[in-house]
Amino acid sequence: MLIIVTYDVSTETAAGRKRLRRVAKACEKMGQRVQKSVFECTVNEMQFEQLERTLLAEIDETQDNLRFYRITEPVEVRVKQHGCFRSVDFEGPLIA
Amino acid sequence: MLIIVTYDVSTETAAGRKRLRRVAKACEKMGQRVQKSVFECTVNEMQFEQLERTLLAEIDETQDNLRFYRITEPVEVRVKQHGCFRSVDFEGPLIA
Repeated sequence: MLIIVTYDVSTETAAGRKRLRRVAKACEKMGQRVQKSVFECTVNEMQFEQLERTLLAEIDETQDNLRFYRITEPVEVRVKQHGCFRSVDFEGPLIA
Repeated sequence: MLIIVTYDVSTETAAGRKRLRRVAKACEKMGQRVQKSVFECTVNEMQFEQLERTLLAEIDETQDNLRFYRITEPVEVRVKQHGCFRSVDFEGPLIA
């Protein structure tokens, strides 16, 4: 199944910036980055549970927000995208 | 229907920052902001087409990325969220 993972991690502190990097890294292992804070992950139920557990262990629920959207088949009908995606600079300065 | 709108707008230039503000404003008219660059919009087909047209007119497809995810019923089964969302500071400095 296709799961869309989106997150807002507060980067006001060094600890927050570290969380952001760790969240991104965990998502990279399970899916395809499509925007700065959006991943598309094709996973089974067990992998999804594992991803959710991993991310919950990384975020600070008092400061960050994490969302999962389950996309049903046929996914090509459900997903539409425009423009370009440059998968660069994510380790650079965290300017939105 | 529920549409998730996510966007990355390049904010390297003043023009980009203006696009970002205009994209956010257009989304605000049609839905609920749930993260910095993620909106949940309950719309019908006509409203969706209108939103898509509006956003396409705002973004620069050579620099920005815009994605729409259609969430099928029952949406409460498809959407899961953790943590907090502070809907503040969006007009402040654009630090991710």
